[in-house]
Amino acid sequence: MSTQDAPRGAPLKPRRPATLRAIAEAVGSHSSTVSRVLNGTAQERRAAASPELAERIRQIAEELDYRPNPHAASLRTRRSGLIGVLVPRLSDLVLAMVYEGIHAAAADAGLSTFVTNTDDLAQRQRSAADVMLARRVDGMIFGDAHLDSEFLTEFADRGVPFVLVNRWSGSFPAATCDDYLGGRLVAEHFLDRGFERAALLAGPEFASTARDRTAGFLDRYREAGIEVPENRIVRAGLDVAEGHRGADELLARGPAPDAIFAVNDFAAIGAIGSLRDHGIRAGEDLAVAGYHDTPLAAELPIPLTSVRTPVKQMGKAAVDMLARAMAGDEPESVRLPPTLVIRASTDPS
Amino acid sequence: MSTQDAPRGAPLKPRRPATLRAIAEAVGSHSSTVSRVLNGTAQERRAAASPELAERIRQIAEELDYRPNPHAASLRTRRSGLIGVLVPRLSDLVLAMVYEGIHAAAADAGLSTFVTNTDDLAQRQRSAADVMLARRVDGMIFGDAHLDSEFLTEFADRGVPFVLVNRWSGSFPAATCDDYLGGRLVAEHFLDRGFERAALLAGPEFASTARDRTAGFLDRYREAGIEVPENRIVRAGLDVAEGHRGADELLARGPAPDAIFAVNDFAAIGAIGSLRDHGIRAGEDLAVAGYHDTPLAAELPIPLTSVRTPVKQMGKAAVDMLARAMAGDEPESVRLPPTLVIRASTDPS
Repeated sequence: MSTQDAPRGAPLKPRRPATLRAIAEAVGSHSSTVSRVLNGTAQERRAAASPELAERIRQIAEELDYRPNPHAASLRTRRSGLIGVLVPRLSDLVLAMVYEGIHAAAADAGLSTFVTNTDDLAQRQRSAADVMLARRVDGMIFGDAHLDSEFLTEFADRGVPFVLVNRWSGSFPAATCDDYLGGRLVAEHFLDRGFERAALLAGPEFASTARDRTAGFLDRYREAGIEVPENRIVRAGLDVAEGHRGADELLARGPAPDAIFAVNDFAAIGAIGSLRDHGIRAGEDLAVAGYHDTPLAAELPIPLTSVRTPVKQMGKAAVDMLARAMAGDEPESVRLPPTLVIRASTDPS
Repeated sequence: MSTQDAPRGAPLKPRRPATLRAIAEAVGSHSSTVSRVLNGTAQERRAAASPELAERIRQIAEELDYRPNPHAASLRTRRSGLIGVLVPRLSDLVLAMVYEGIHAAAADAGLSTFVTNTDDLAQRQRSAADVMLARRVDGMIFGDAHLDSEFLTEFADRGVPFVLVNRWSGSFPAATCDDYLGGRLVAEHFLDRGFERAALLAGPEFASTARDRTAGFLDRYREAGIEVPENRIVRAGLDVAEGHRGADELLARGPAPDAIFAVNDFAAIGAIGSLRDHGIRAGEDLAVAGYHDTPLAAELPIPLTSVRTPVKQMGKAAVDMLARAMAGDEPESVRLPPTLVIRASTDPS
């Protein structure tokens, strides 16, 4: 596993409210003193610092936009040993495998995990997070981050440690795979094979995963002097049924492409089903590549070319990062490298 | 959805400790009186009944093996609105879909759900249930029941309402599909197609699902005068890798079967991969059937014959049953009927 710079679009150092340490440095005091002044009882406040020092600490805290962390106090006194995990849906095998990585790494660290579906709906993200917090989770791992949502910014105000996994958003610490590179790898392979009429089954715009894979793919084609036209890009969901529908739509828009990149193995399998119904043989007549190299890919009658991503390690990285966040540190984002596995669906020879 | 009699091997009426109602009937009093005598504070006990009546209630309770329900008291005063769900592993798509049925039905009823993996290990079942109970769940749904484990019997003593889903065990209320019938349907179809050297990729012995599918399949062949020999039955896990390994083993034992029933679609896909590696075409040269008719089955280049099971409805049925158990009723077990979907992997014509 390698720690790389943050995902494209995400600055490396998250902008965050000031920590106690930063305030302590600014006033030339200890962070324990600052903590007692800002978070202590009246008696602790009086015992910790002179009225002058206390006033200076409060001023600096206001200037630095410090927000007391109600959860930190409970952490010092009692750990629940519980991590809450939110994902769009567990019937997406990739999320289920990320969760298994989280579950195993947490178990190794003596922590328990619960996971729930939010169906990628902001309202369910809020209510599920509320239920988790009411159960006094020590921290949260969000696998359902949206690029365009206020939810995470709101949640950050609650002072509960959290990290993102699989998808990044804004400047929050995130354990991801390099989806932009993954998209480039597929385009590179398609170009090597001479495919000039490539098509794309892209995922939802609000997910960094789908957006980055699409951007990497289109950028690499552009570098080769080929602009993939709008009518060969179909927005589809990430499951079998959506892949089938997406390929149907691509073929209806004709003329037929010579290769399809589906940003998910299940969508790729659905696309292969659609091609079969149209009398088109995947691999022989039209190349199809997927993403994630799920255990299915290698076993299909026409083995599927796919981008291999270390999903379980991504889950483990998220737990490691959350442990650091729970210890009061600011974890660096981790981005794991993908590799391309070439099989008969794009290279029947 | 139909409510049928309990799974084979499970008596319809679970044997359970006496309820307050049964004790009240036996002593000719109200169950609220009985509850106060058995579960109330010292003051409530004195106010509820004469010393004579109280003594009679306690005697009857002992005779009827009544166990106070510590959870019931908390239910009366405060509902957490939270259901805990345990499954072997969420990367098994079938369990993920059962959970989605649970999650959706619970949300409709204003309840939240958390799920966690137990890896089918008794130790993790215990620890995960402990963590859930410490979070004051209103009830539990177990999707990881073992036929040979003491865990559920122990858990029943804790007085927290629970139901089983997908797998049954003992006489506990369970929402299942009729796996025995599912196995019979596949055997019936294989016999219709003239397959006399059928083989079986059976799942783990401790799971009622695998055991019942296997029993139904073998029984139906037996009724046709064909005993499937031991060397054509391989115990394998329920995922792609295990299906591949299982088919490798079957072929190594030679002579080759004419049909393989894998008790799970993913195992069937792994088996098809193994056949492909041996130069054997699934469907054309050797029939393969799976189980659960996951969304993949219809989309494969060689569409997969599979037993369709209403997994999401099974999840919903479990929530309905748990709601009844939480209301103090004894829910009847529900067993949903499967259907066979015949495709090219067993019928290429």
